[in-house]
Amino acid sequence: MKKVGVAILGLGVVGGGTYKILTEHREFYKKNHGVDITVESVLERNEKRALELGVDKSKLCSNVAEICSNPEVDIVVEVIGGVEPARSFVLAALNSGKSVVTSNKELYCKYSHELEKTAKKNRVGLFFEASCVGGVPVIRSMLDNLQGNEFSSLMGIINGTTNYILTKMSDGGASYKSVLEEAQKLGYAETDPTSDVEGYDAAYKLSILSSIAFHTKVPYTEIYREGITDIENVDVEYGKQLGYALKLLAIGKNGESGIEVRVHPAFIKSSHPLANVNDSYNAVYLTGDCVEDVMLYGRGAGAMPTGSAIVGDIIYCALHPNHSYSTFKNTEKADANTKFVKNFESEYYIRLSAEDKAGVLSKITATFGKHAISVAQFVQDKEREGGKAPLIVVTHITKEQNIKKAVADINATGLAKVDAVIRVIS
Amino acid sequence: MKKVGVAILGLGVVGGGTYKILTEHREFYKKNHGVDITVESVLERNEKRALELGVDKSKLCSNVAEICSNPEVDIVVEVIGGVEPARSFVLAALNSGKSVVTSNKELYCKYSHELEKTAKKNRVGLFFEASCVGGVPVIRSMLDNLQGNEFSSLMGIINGTTNYILTKMSDGGASYKSVLEEAQKLGYAETDPTSDVEGYDAAYKLSILSSIAFHTKVPYTEIYREGITDIENVDVEYGKQLGYALKLLAIGKNGESGIEVRVHPAFIKSSHPLANVNDSYNAVYLTGDCVEDVMLYGRGAGAMPTGSAIVGDIIYCALHPNHSYSTFKNTEKADANTKFVKNFESEYYIRLSAEDKAGVLSKITATFGKHAISVAQFVQDKEREGGKAPLIVVTHITKEQNIKKAVADINATGLAKVDAVIRVIS
Repeated sequence: MKKVGVAILGLGVVGGGTYKILTEHREFYKKNHGVDITVESVLERNEKRALELGVDKSKLCSNVAEICSNPEVDIVVEVIGGVEPARSFVLAALNSGKSVVTSNKELYCKYSHELEKTAKKNRVGLFFEASCVGGVPVIRSMLDNLQGNEFSSLMGIINGTTNYILTKMSDGGASYKSVLEEAQKLGYAETDPTSDVEGYDAAYKLSILSSIAFHTKVPYTEIYREGITDIENVDVEYGKQLGYALKLLAIGKNGESGIEVRVHPAFIKSSHPLANVNDSYNAVYLTGDCVEDVMLYGRGAGAMPTGSAIVGDIIYCALHPNHSYSTFKNTEKADANTKFVKNFESEYYIRLSAEDKAGVLSKITATFGKHAISVAQFVQDKEREGGKAPLIVVTHITKEQNIKKAVADINATGLAKVDAVIRVIS
Repeated sequence: MKKVGVAILGLGVVGGGTYKILTEHREFYKKNHGVDITVESVLERNEKRALELGVDKSKLCSNVAEICSNPEVDIVVEVIGGVEPARSFVLAALNSGKSVVTSNKELYCKYSHELEKTAKKNRVGLFFEASCVGGVPVIRSMLDNLQGNEFSSLMGIINGTTNYILTKMSDGGASYKSVLEEAQKLGYAETDPTSDVEGYDAAYKLSILSSIAFHTKVPYTEIYREGITDIENVDVEYGKQLGYALKLLAIGKNGESGIEVRVHPAFIKSSHPLANVNDSYNAVYLTGDCVEDVMLYGRGAGAMPTGSAIVGDIIYCALHPNHSYSTFKNTEKADANTKFVKNFESEYYIRLSAEDKAGVLSKITATFGKHAISVAQFVQDKEREGGKAPLIVVTHITKEQNIKKAVADINATGLAKVDAVIRVIS
């Protein structure tokens, strides 16, 4: 039987899950996949953690060079996260003839070109299914199943922490701040939640996914990014009444005017499959010219689901040692002829507080008209207490810049104030 | 650039879609996948159909032997359907050194072992993603992404025709018969709809999917099968009131007592992701011991979505000519130690009509008690016209055989009659 040795760099949440899966399923993989996969080496400073997981002391190592020169190691799993030292370690592993499986979205997003070039030069495999959307098989599906399609759109709920927070805000009416604190206590959000709640994590993943979908590098610096920290419950509630669910969406589009990539909170119709993706579940909704709509749904994070993606790559790599996924264009920069759309179009939900006197409404509608914004729905909530009755406006499709100008004009009147602007996906 | 020639056996719906995708995307595949894929030969008796699709007359052929001996052909696409002549054609292609891509669920379900053995002997590829759930990438996901998991459960809406019919019955209140007629007019159901509405099509697919998921051959003859032809609107309506959607479900389970495979109509809680899979959309919901729950959703049929799956396999095969999917156990029969569970457990929805007189209710509940059936919900619809008020009973989990005995006992009293029994998935 074929024997394959694995080294794991980092025994954090995902590294621990991977170790557990590999050791507990060893006989299962021998029986069903015909390959004997053993963990030959573990790079982890926290010896206590390693021993608790059952790692034999002789397998613990403190130096990536040892792993690179270990002939028992065929595949190196990088689950350290962040750019350095992960990047140097991965390059060293590839250059010493080891295949690499990584879950590192920031590294892959920023250095995929260098990593792939190095893997090709050394004729070894490089796999990164676990870098995006945990256990959901989205990367190989795009590369090895749906690759006959020209994709026009990719929409995803690809960050578990924010989806958990928005679901709780929607279910129970608790504020962003209190739900975040609860999520931190439960371990669903990190002590410094910036990367999740400000959309950086989703932007890294969107960069990777849209680069694959659109056959050109989509640098994360091209992604418009807006987090969920300013979301108020009142808007979640009004959205529900209007038939929308609020989600942090990662959106990639490829059309005649170019590629458009953005991460921001958005209202989505409650009948849309993405609207029913709740709690820490994730999903990616793809539209291709042949397959039409496909949605892949599951756990976007966690030790075992992300470990599942890593182990899937390990087994594939063990059985096909000389190649990676099917080809995709992994250039350093976007192709010269690629245009990125900045002034994108959307429908918009706008909440205003306005003086309840004659002429104010007509002034507001006139301002929308001036900026060529056509209003689809207009709701005045007179039931709410206080002097200024909230006004909700939902627009037809319009340019983002026009909305910004209209908002500035309305605020300048002194008669009304725009309290929230949320994009709407219909 | 690598050149790969394809032959298509059969230009029906799927064959036509495949031809269209390959010819219209030729430059796209050259640019993005680095391979020049051309259709070198087409086996189709209906010359008019072929010419209308744009096939050059010189590529039309009437004889599979011609294709097998054509050195320009590397990959043979079989989209004829049914067992013969498809089986002989596929075997001839494999034996002449061609890789094969097929969408033929009946053939793959019944003869996968023979086909795989022949492919291995000839060191060529054999791919069948299109055989199950059209454009939804479920087969490769199980084999090359989620293969690190032990799957405990697989539930799917894997027949588009029946899902379209049940969705329409649920939306509009029309009868099974009238919706079927409409579906036939629209081309969503065949003139002889037996294979779809009686669950044969779903059973073939469930056999293929559960054989992969559970690592042993699951012959379709082991699958309990019940169609949707007896479904009445009144039950769809009562189900909705109880918070259920009615679906034709394909269910595979693998547990301590063995493997359980069944296709039948079932109520599923409206909060379950499968409950929102409507019209001709399909989805497969998998539960693995690492990844937890994953759902793959999309178009389960149609020229372009199924063509997408075929072309995905063609491109993969063109780039990796010497292997198929990763290994799976494709034996002729189930392993000797495999047990199939026949007397499975479920919750049940039971609709009865009963004489509205004292003692009847207590007799019914006593009968359930006698067969160890615990009742979760009991609803009497006194609003309905006519002498006999419908009684709805929803049970807790119980054995199928106990339900059958209870139904027989109740019917034997002459005081009540069981009008419908539908399994409930909670």
